[in-house]
Formats: sequence, C-alpha cells, structure tokens
Amino acid sequence: MSERKLSHWGWGWADKFPSTDARKQLGTQLGAMLGIAPSGPTDPVALDDVSLHDARVSAPDSVPCVTDDREERIRHTYGRAFGDVVRGFAGDFAAAPDLVAHPTTEEEVGHVLDWAQGAKVAVVPYGGGTSVVRGVECALPEGFAGTLSLDLRRLDRVLEVEPTSRTARIQAGASGPRLEEQLKEHGMTLRCFPQSFEHSTLGGWIATRAGGHFATNYTHIDDLTASIRALTPAGVKEGQVWQSRRLPGSGAGPSPDRMMLGSEGTLGVITEAWMRVRPRPRFRASASVKFADYSKAVDACRAVAQSGLFPSNCRLLDAREAKLNMVATDGSSVLVLAFESADHPLEAWMERALELARDHGGVAGEPTYSDSGSKTGESGAAGSWKNAFIEMPYLQNVMVSLGVIADTFETAIPWDRFEELHSALVTNVRGAMKEVCGSPCHLSCRFTHVYPDGPAPYYTFIAKARPGAELEQWAAIKKAASDTLIAHGATITHHHAVGRTHAPWYREQRPTEMGNALRALKGALDPEGILNPGALI
Amino acid sequence: MSERKLSHWGWGWADKFPSTDARKQLGTQLGAMLGIAPSGPTDPVALDDVSLHDARVSAPDSVPCVTDDREERIRHTYGRAFGDVVRGFAGDFAAAPDLVAHPTTEEEVGHVLDWAQGAKVAVVPYGGGTSVVRGVECALPEGFAGTLSLDLRRLDRVLEVEPTSRTARIQAGASGPRLEEQLKEHGMTLRCFPQSFEHSTLGGWIATRAGGHFATNYTHIDDLTASIRALTPAGVKEGQVWQSRRLPGSGAGPSPDRMMLGSEGTLGVITEAWMRVRPRPRFRASASVKFADYSKAVDACRAVAQSGLFPSNCRLLDAREAKLNMVATDGSSVLVLAFESADHPLEAWMERALELARDHGGVAGEPTYSDSGSKTGESGAAGSWKNAFIEMPYLQNVMVSLGVIADTFETAIPWDRFEELHSALVTNVRGAMKEVCGSPCHLSCRFTHVYPDGPAPYYTFIAKARPGAELEQWAAIKKAASDTLIAHGATITHHHAVGRTHAPWYREQRPTEMGNALRALKGALDPEGILNPGALI
Repeated sequence: MSERKLSHWGWGWADKFPSTDARKQLGTQLGAMLGIAPSGPTDPVALDDVSLHDARVSAPDSVPCVTDDREERIRHTYGRAFGDVVRGFAGDFAAAPDLVAHPTTEEEVGHVLDWAQGAKVAVVPYGGGTSVVRGVECALPEGFAGTLSLDLRRLDRVLEVEPTSRTARIQAGASGPRLEEQLKEHGMTLRCFPQSFEHSTLGGWIATRAGGHFATNYTHIDDLTASIRALTPAGVKEGQVWQSRRLPGSGAGPSPDRMMLGSEGTLGVITEAWMRVRPRPRFRASASVKFADYSKAVDACRAVAQSGLFPSNCRLLDAREAKLNMVATDGSSVLVLAFESADHPLEAWMERALELARDHGGVAGEPTYSDSGSKTGESGAAGSWKNAFIEMPYLQNVMVSLGVIADTFETAIPWDRFEELHSALVTNVRGAMKEVCGSPCHLSCRFTHVYPDGPAPYYTFIAKARPGAELEQWAAIKKAASDTLIAHGATITHHHAVGRTHAPWYREQRPTEMGNALRALKGALDPEGILNPGALI
Repeated sequence: MSERKLSHWGWGWADKFPSTDARKQLGTQLGAMLGIAPSGPTDPVALDDVSLHDARVSAPDSVPCVTDDREERIRHTYGRAFGDVVRGFAGDFAAAPDLVAHPTTEEEVGHVLDWAQGAKVAVVPYGGGTSVVRGVECALPEGFAGTLSLDLRRLDRVLEVEPTSRTARIQAGASGPRLEEQLKEHGMTLRCFPQSFEHSTLGGWIATRAGGHFATNYTHIDDLTASIRALTPAGVKEGQVWQSRRLPGSGAGPSPDRMMLGSEGTLGVITEAWMRVRPRPRFRASASVKFADYSKAVDACRAVAQSGLFPSNCRLLDAREAKLNMVATDGSSVLVLAFESADHPLEAWMERALELARDHGGVAGEPTYSDSGSKTGESGAAGSWKNAFIEMPYLQNVMVSLGVIADTFETAIPWDRFEELHSALVTNVRGAMKEVCGSPCHLSCRFTHVYPDGPAPYYTFIAKARPGAELEQWAAIKKAASDTLIAHGATITHHHAVGRTHAPWYREQRPTEMGNALRALKGALDPEGILNPGALI
C-alpha cells in the first residue's frame, strides 16, 4: 500500500482534488448560487514539471536529518494562503527552502539550530504547513547563506497523560488527529479544533495563538497551555532549554508562556507543551435561532455572550453566510447555539440562552438534548458540522482551478464598535471587489468567537479572477479589508496570526515600543536572527 | 474636619489600631485559641520620633510635583509585608526614598521619568503601598544618585464607561473603593477584590498580576484587562506612549498587555487601562459543606473545579483554618461554595455542585438562594464575609505589637502534586517554626482559587517571636516555605507577586533564558535602568 500523499500545491490530501468533470459541476453550482461565472477548470502544474533553483547551501554531514531532496523542498515552500495555492497551482516555487530537516528528537532540533547559527542559514519552524498568512514562506533574507525548513512532524507523541490534573505532555509536531487519537486511549481530548485541525500541529497552534473549538470561555490555545518547552538558538549555545513549570496559575512575573504564544517561530522552536485536556463530553444541547433583523441578532448574541452561560457554540451567521451554508435561504440571520458538558445535563443553560435570544426577537427552533452515556465521540449533528467545517478548505483548491478568488479574513472588535466596522468593511471590501473583479461578488460574515466585550467576526469573500492577475486582485481586496480593520480599531488578526501577510498592519496596531521590545527579546534568544526572519518582527 | 490618616508603619487607617487594653484582650484570646502566649503589647515609635537620613538628591524645579517632605518620605518607604510592619513599628525607615512625586496628570509622570533618567534617580512606581513582597522598597542601588517614590494615587478617575461592551477606562492610581464608587454610578462593577482592596490600586493590581474575587474562571486582573497604557523611560525620550488596542481578543503576536502584566514597575509606569466590568450581581447562591476527611474534601473541590460549573466561590478551609475562622470547631474541613449572576437564577448550578460534594463524602448544609431584584450591593452573608476578609490585615498590626509572627504565603500546584506538596509544607514549615520559635505554633491552609488543573493553596502561619529577632525568625520560616515550594514544582507566588522577597526563588523558577529575555526587554524600554531596580529582574 502506498502512503497517502498531501497535495504539493493545495490544501490537504492530493486524492481529494476532484476530477475535471466534478470541478466543472461545482463551477456550475457556484454560478447558480452566487452568479459568479467560473472559468476553466484548469489543472495544476504537475510536481515533476516544477522547475526549482538549486540549493544554495548543502546538507551538513553533522546533522543527518537534513536533506536537499527536490520534492521535500517544493513541499515545504508555502503555507496554504490563497496566494500560496495560486502560486503552487502555477508551479511557482521560487521561495523554496534550500534544505529540509526532519528531526526525530529534541536533540536533533538542537543540532540543526547549532549548525544553522554557524552557517548563517535561516530556519523556519514548520508544523502542518497550513499557515494562511505566509508564516512559513521564507525567501532568502539578506546576509544569509540559505534557508532551511525545520519540519517537526516526527515529534508527534503524547508523552504523558496526568488524569488527576487533566494535563498531557505532548510533542509539538503532533497534528490534531495524531494527538487526539493518543489522548483518546486515556479517555481524554484537547478539544481544540481549528479549521486546519486535520494537518496543523500543536506547536503551530501555540506559535500562532490558534483559536479553539468553543465560541466562549477557555478555548484559545493560550488558555489550554499549562507549560511550554522550547529550544532557542541562544539556549542551544548555552546548554539551556526554555522550560516553564506546569502550573494551573502563577503570578510570578510576566508569563513566560505568553512570550512564546504568538511568537510565530521567531523566538524559539517549541518542542513540547503540557496541555489542559478534558474528558470527552457526554451531554449536549443545540438549537438555532432565526432573526429577520441582523442588528437584533447581534444584540441577542451579545446578551448570550454577557450572560455567564458560556455556550460551546454561539455563532451568528449573517443572511449571506446562512444562505451560503444552506442553513437559511429566506434572508434570515441564524444564531447557532450549543452547550456541551462531561458533567451535567444542560437544559437550564440552553433554556436561559433561548430566552435571551427570544427577548431580542429571535425565533428559536426546538432545542435538542443528548446524553451519550458511556459512549464517546461526536453525536450526529455536531459530528457532521465538524466534518463539513474541516472539509471547507478543500474548496479553495477547486476555486483556484475555476479562476475564482475565495478567501477569508477575521478580526475582533468591541461590541460598541462592531456595527460601524461591519458597515465600513461591507462598503470597502465589496467596493474593492467590484473595482478589481467586477460584479457579482460575495461577502458574508459569521462570528467564530464571542466575548463579553466583543465578537470575533469572520468574513468570506468570493469574486471572479482575471487569469494571471489573481494575486494582484486579491492584494487589492485584502488591502481594503486590512486598512479598514486598522482604521476602525480592530485587530489585524484574531486567530490566523501575523506572518508576512499581516506584518505591515500589525506594525501599525502594536504599541510602537512593542516593536523595540520584540527585537530586544529576539536579540536575547536568537542573537544571529536565524529564526523565521521576516515574520512578525 | 481633619483628613483621615493612614498608619505610617502598619496596615491601613491609623485610627483602627486598637488601644493597649483592647490589644491586651486580643492577646489573651489568641493565647486561649492557639496557645501562643503574647508579650507586650508594645507601642510603635511615633512618627515624630523617627530618625531619617537626609535626602541625597533635591527636588527639581522643573518637576513641581516632587517633594522631599520628611513625612512623605517615611510614608513611602515600605509596603505592608510582615517585615515592613516590624521595621515601621520599630521606627526603622532606613530604606526611605529621597523624594516623593505626586503627579496629577500623565504628562507629569513623563516629566518625572525624563528628569530621573538624566539625574540617575531610581524611580519606584507606588500605588497603594500594600505590597507584601517588598515590591516598593528601594534602598539606594549602586550607581544611582537617589531614589524617588512615584505615587500615582492622584490619577484616580474612571475616565469612560462603555456599557455596550462593558468596559471602562480607569486611571492606574484609583484604589478599589475609588474605582468602584465611580463605576457604581454607571451600574457597573469590576468585581476585583484582593484583600488589599481598600487601599491598593488598579495599576498595582496589573503590575503584580493580582488575584481576583472569584475562585474560578475569569477572575485575575490579567483576564479583566482589555488594554494597557503605560509610559516607559525610552518612550518618554522618544515621545511614545505604550498603548495597546482595546480588544476582546487578538492573535496578533505575543500579547503586549501580558508583557506589562506582572512587570512590577520595572518596564513602565502604567497610567491607565481599559477594564472589563460587569453589572452588579442579582442572583446569589451559597452553601457550605463539611468533610471529616481532608483528602476527600480536596477531591470534592477538584470535582467542582473540573465540572465546568464555575462557582464564584469554591474555597476549601482545612480543619485548622476552619477553626481559626470559627467556621467549624469540630475538626471538619469546610468547602464554601457560592455562585452569583446578574443574569439567571442559580439552583441548577448549586444543586449539581452539592451533588459532587456529597459524592465525595461531604455533608452539605441547606443552600441559600437570593434574588436582590433591582437592589444592588452585597447581601448580608456575602457582605459580612467580604468585610471580615478586608479587615483581616489589620490583625497583623496587633500581632506585631504582641510579639507574634503572623504571615501568609501562597502558591499554585497541579492537583496530582498537591498532597505531596502540602505534606512537605506542613513538615518543613511547622519544623522551622518549632525550631526558631518553639511550640505551640499554627499553620493552616485554604484554597483561594481552584482551576481544572490545580488549586491555589494559601497558608497562614503564626508563631511566638523573640523580641528583636522577629525578622530573622520570620526569614527562617519563609525560607523553609519557599524552598519547599520550589523543590516541589510549585510557583513561588500565585498572586502576591515577586518583589524583592521572592526574587531568589523566582530566579530558580523561571526558565533560565527568561532572565535574559526580561533584561533585554528592560534594556529596550528602560535603558538607564531607573525603574524599580532590584525588583523582579
């Protein structure tokens, strides 16, 4: 049996890219639904036909886990942003690293960093390669001899599970499915399901501050992290490992873990972490509520977010998003509510949440309750939603082959500023799409997370591409979105990270002195500046 | 009417120090309860009789908010640790600052920092002066011309309240009562009640990562902070203010707020913050549960902490603590449970929590439920508990005058390690007390906060002092406690901060490279190293 292969240019497994006929049919559906006429479908440049520059440095004998294999280099060139898929589809791998390392131990990671510092080789920590912000793409920076992609996926084990404290020590290269299958043996789950879950890794989630599965309360990877272990270039030289204590809480100085969380591979290579896990849920409740008026739906969502009920799901889909997802086709906005618990039935929680929704004009469907008893695993509805959510990124592969721009952007904003921001985004992003792509085009919004002080809105945009101009058109739309976010006090990213894509806006967003602070931190931990140059800092 | 004065040597208001007779009586009660025979009572050295060194630098004309007034200098010498009270009582103010500043605007804070950098004067940001870890005490560091205490209490206003997003912009020098009285006008509350609430300030809470009122879920000042504004010495030179965006969440790089949270006045002077506030609670539920077996009580407490019910109170008092607080005198441990909500009745929550407690052998009293309707303010029981809690530190003043050592230390530890840690602490701390103070002595424990992965235990120790040897005896006991915490993987502090007291153990606790990281951060933000030298870094 041959090993299942990942696509070398697009999202996920290669065998999931549909046939020409199937893509043609999807194009027809798209046209009917959104009025956007597809072109093509065209086919990607085959792996064998990709032309690749020669490696500028050679694999060192002292570090046998390093290779300059052509296919490895191609496969480690990009993340999976829209622009990455477009370039990969077109066979453009100009940013390919010279070398790829596959360490199987933390010691080998140290050897790679040690060698790279001496050889002045830029090192890009690589987890699932699912960045949508050009977080792992590293063209040769000035003053460097070459670039190396440090693939951590062979460090994929759950090393310890501590059931009393519900914590597990997990290697950074474990993908979502790998860590969940190992935790399952202990009746535990991390319950962190970013959309990239199938391929992204724990270390990547920590480095990019991944958003979690739940819409409220402890859900971000930040909240689930009890301690982090990392190798820094300075530490490797001095025989030190960055290792914080496994603690439920601590007031001892600024949190060391919060320095690594969001560091995007620029300060150290995360090798493992103690994570807060939990038993699989037993009780579930779910319901959806329709609203004729979006602004009342937002108020209802806010009321639930501020109630202290902490639903696991509290996702508001605007009318376009509801239609796109075939949740409502009558122009309603839909609030999807869910609760889950391993401990107690959820009627009191759901009933109060529905009461709040009705108070704001919502029309609630009958809630469903389930008790899986001793059985574990997702129940029907939740399971199929999760599967559809996980499958979503595959559609982008198809869109690119159909000459369609399809992407998302996300943010967070206080409730009092949401309406103004939303209206400005609709004006500016639709305006940019019409200008560079023409009509019709699509922009829709859902909330992925809600907090007492504000929502995290997530936007999907779809427009017709002009062959050869996709990247330029996309950049104009993205600029309109990003400029609007920054002008309205929002964050340039809620859970997609900064990478190279968001760097210009991130520099406007952070306190000016925060740039100096980060450079100083980097100077202390990575004095040669070899780690992921060009990202974040 | 003359202004009410704070004690110049001990906790809180001067007029609350009991008369000699009253103290004698309290000493008799203490003897009867714990068998610890008090001495004295003695009286503190009067303010007028304190001898003070001359100021080594003089107040600059360019910064009129600075004074070298003798009384001001005495009053800004110490925090309120046991050793501070002992030294203050004895009239020893050797660590007094040369100058005290009382800025009334952020601009004046900038002027002070600007002048101090040029004059090589160490600046100690000062809020309520309630540090119990020698966080505001600053003897003249080598290479400095003098020291200045930067008192921020005149920056005490709530500047804006945003009801939709439930956030408020508050100046850093506002004490607990000051900010609550201003928020109350808007029907809001921060609900952050550290034991120092009456005198400590928002800026101090942020700088020291104060623990909040609730035993579970969003409770720490870290969680309540939406954005921070600070002046750094480097920023003052460059005309920059450290200002993060008010956001409900953000995944853009490492959190700038988390760099300031816990920085203990070493990186910048916090001038204001946007805080997450909430309406005053309407529904309350409370109950207490007795356990004959402490280890079963711990299991019950853990079950509640891991249930996802998020009680506002989940404080386990061991038998000695329960007796000391007169909650139970029959040798039981007592779990105090409470829920509160502004949104919904709490029967379902409390019933399930009591079920969990009973499953672990607890004997639960009848829960009480209340609905204050439109009325606000604390209900009877919660209110009187809060008042007693807030009054507690006054007892230390009395203890010092009675020749008794009385202090607390606190930590956090995963559940799986608690029992071993607790047993080691009992052995080592009681051992140290017996060795240096003789029998009888007292050590008791309660949980102040509980997390799914572990508790935050808080210990009270009381022993007989030998006149003139109090500080030395205390240091031996504290060393036994701190060594044990570090050896058993716990944190040196959960919410009291590091200061100068915990610095040696903190250096063992943090990742070695974290020291380099913090020094680098300080180099970038405070290049002359004027801010609170000797604390934390």
